[in-house]
Amino acid sequence: MMIDSPKKVAEILKEQNNILILVHAHPDGDTLGCGYSLCRSLLSLGKNARVCCSDPIPPKYGYLFDDIEEKVFDPDFIVAVDVADTKLLGKTNEELYADKVDLCIDHHGSNRFYAKQTYLDASAAAACEILLQVTKELGVEIGKKTADCIYTGLSTDTGCFRYSNVTPRTMIMGAEMIEKGASHADINTVMFDTKTKSYLELQRLCLEGLELHFDGRCSLITVTQEMFRKSGSDESECDAIASLARQVEGVTVGATLRERADGSFKVSLRTHAPVDASAICGKMNGGGHSRAAGCQLEGTLEEVKAILLKNIEEFMK
Amino acid sequence: MMIDSPKKVAEILKEQNNILILVHAHPDGDTLGCGYSLCRSLLSLGKNARVCCSDPIPPKYGYLFDDIEEKVFDPDFIVAVDVADTKLLGKTNEELYADKVDLCIDHHGSNRFYAKQTYLDASAAAACEILLQVTKELGVEIGKKTADCIYTGLSTDTGCFRYSNVTPRTMIMGAEMIEKGASHADINTVMFDTKTKSYLELQRLCLEGLELHFDGRCSLITVTQEMFRKSGSDESECDAIASLARQVEGVTVGATLRERADGSFKVSLRTHAPVDASAICGKMNGGGHSRAAGCQLEGTLEEVKAILLKNIEEFMK
Repeated sequence: MMIDSPKKVAEILKEQNNILILVHAHPDGDTLGCGYSLCRSLLSLGKNARVCCSDPIPPKYGYLFDDIEEKVFDPDFIVAVDVADTKLLGKTNEELYADKVDLCIDHHGSNRFYAKQTYLDASAAAACEILLQVTKELGVEIGKKTADCIYTGLSTDTGCFRYSNVTPRTMIMGAEMIEKGASHADINTVMFDTKTKSYLELQRLCLEGLELHFDGRCSLITVTQEMFRKSGSDESECDAIASLARQVEGVTVGATLRERADGSFKVSLRTHAPVDASAICGKMNGGGHSRAAGCQLEGTLEEVKAILLKNIEEFMK
Repeated sequence: MMIDSPKKVAEILKEQNNILILVHAHPDGDTLGCGYSLCRSLLSLGKNARVCCSDPIPPKYGYLFDDIEEKVFDPDFIVAVDVADTKLLGKTNEELYADKVDLCIDHHGSNRFYAKQTYLDASAAAACEILLQVTKELGVEIGKKTADCIYTGLSTDTGCFRYSNVTPRTMIMGAEMIEKGASHADINTVMFDTKTKSYLELQRLCLEGLELHFDGRCSLITVTQEMFRKSGSDESECDAIASLARQVEGVTVGATLRERADGSFKVSLRTHAPVDASAICGKMNGGGHSRAAGCQLEGTLEEVKAILLKNIEEFMK
């Protein structure tokens, strides 16, 4: 069932007392910002609430919850935030809760409506935009730590207010959270201006092997298992490499080929308008968004590279 | 004389008819955003106005003025925007106008009050925050192109709303400019997500030579003339290298030593709180802001490195 307003979401939540909040696996700033801002609001209303993730939460997000005492209770209401599909809950939570989600709050147009009730606003740049509306409807005070949570979601899902998904609402909500005391500069330093030595070494190796194709309109970066070993980096740091490929001047398609431990390859495409990344990946049984998409390929590096470039070429004409 | 409000600035401008607008040398998005938004407002009021810079304007800023027809007229009123000191006007304009500036609109606390009248708001993250207030007081319509100009200043002077200088006002003004049609995503792509091949090659060489000192709390990058030759890059692309030094995880002082054509060295320091970059550079006859400062050093690379590290060490205790 579709819910039609943040007000209705708040009304549903107010009726519950023991609430488990699920965030997606490989958690990011938006799903965690949603989870912990909601958890804080529910706790402040005297309810039992806790956030649950299938994966460990990266230490850099510690400030989102370092002051929350974990409650032990039997949940009787399950909310998923920023989770478009039960598959994205990750192994543990998918097995435990896939068919038991009571309420889903999300901003992905691709939401699968797996929950009993869903509030979806695909115009929200970050799910935290919705969470802020819900928080206001719950009538709780927005303290500094809640502001940190919401700001983190707004900022991380928009590349720090940089991408085309940003609307005036996103900016105004950012202003409100700074007003409420969010440590915006510190959060942004951690999220955008801190690079591990291993990542910088991986980046150096990637730049060394950067290839340009189709008159410089397509860049191709290959990340091998050997490069992970040499640099001490791993797959968790590869998202930034995918963005790097598209940053090269004159490039409209930035492609990254990442060798998996099993020898297969993960393709990540990042494009500039008008090139449709999801259409290119669709040709290789993958998919995604218009400017960011992916797929899997099997074969030797040379075979895989040839398939990828052939499929990109069709869209470069 | 100090002017006390954007309203008064607008009143002064309304009385003038032939206005020359000076921006600072090595022009950036904020000074140009100020210059061209003001130029547009004055033109729309039927006045003669044009922007003048001692240096050529980098092509990436072309969209700020590509639709403005350059007016030929004898100026009788001179306004400087985002220019803290006449030295920053650059050689040509300093010689022509240093003692003739009628009005200065600025946000630098270090402003030298060289103009006959000055409106200074050091709480503004970008001088374009002031220009938007002035534009509103002038009573002119804010069209898409003016919104592009103001947004460019807001975004470029804050690292895309990332730095500690951002206030709720900065964010709200960003929202207003998007509402007025600013091409925010395209502007940010050009300003933040486009890197030349020569810059990426320079970055690779810099990462290769990156040194860590004082238990990893200080990073040191050396950029030599040889590296400029090898990469095809030049000094104009070095600002991003200076930021790179501070991005290394665990680093509180990121130092860049850049070899000049004459063999001397330019030091750029970028720090995280609480390390005071301007205090460190002050010890070497330089200066700047608390998180970004610089100085000049003479000697061989090894001598210069030793002096720099010795001065940094004192502040690392």
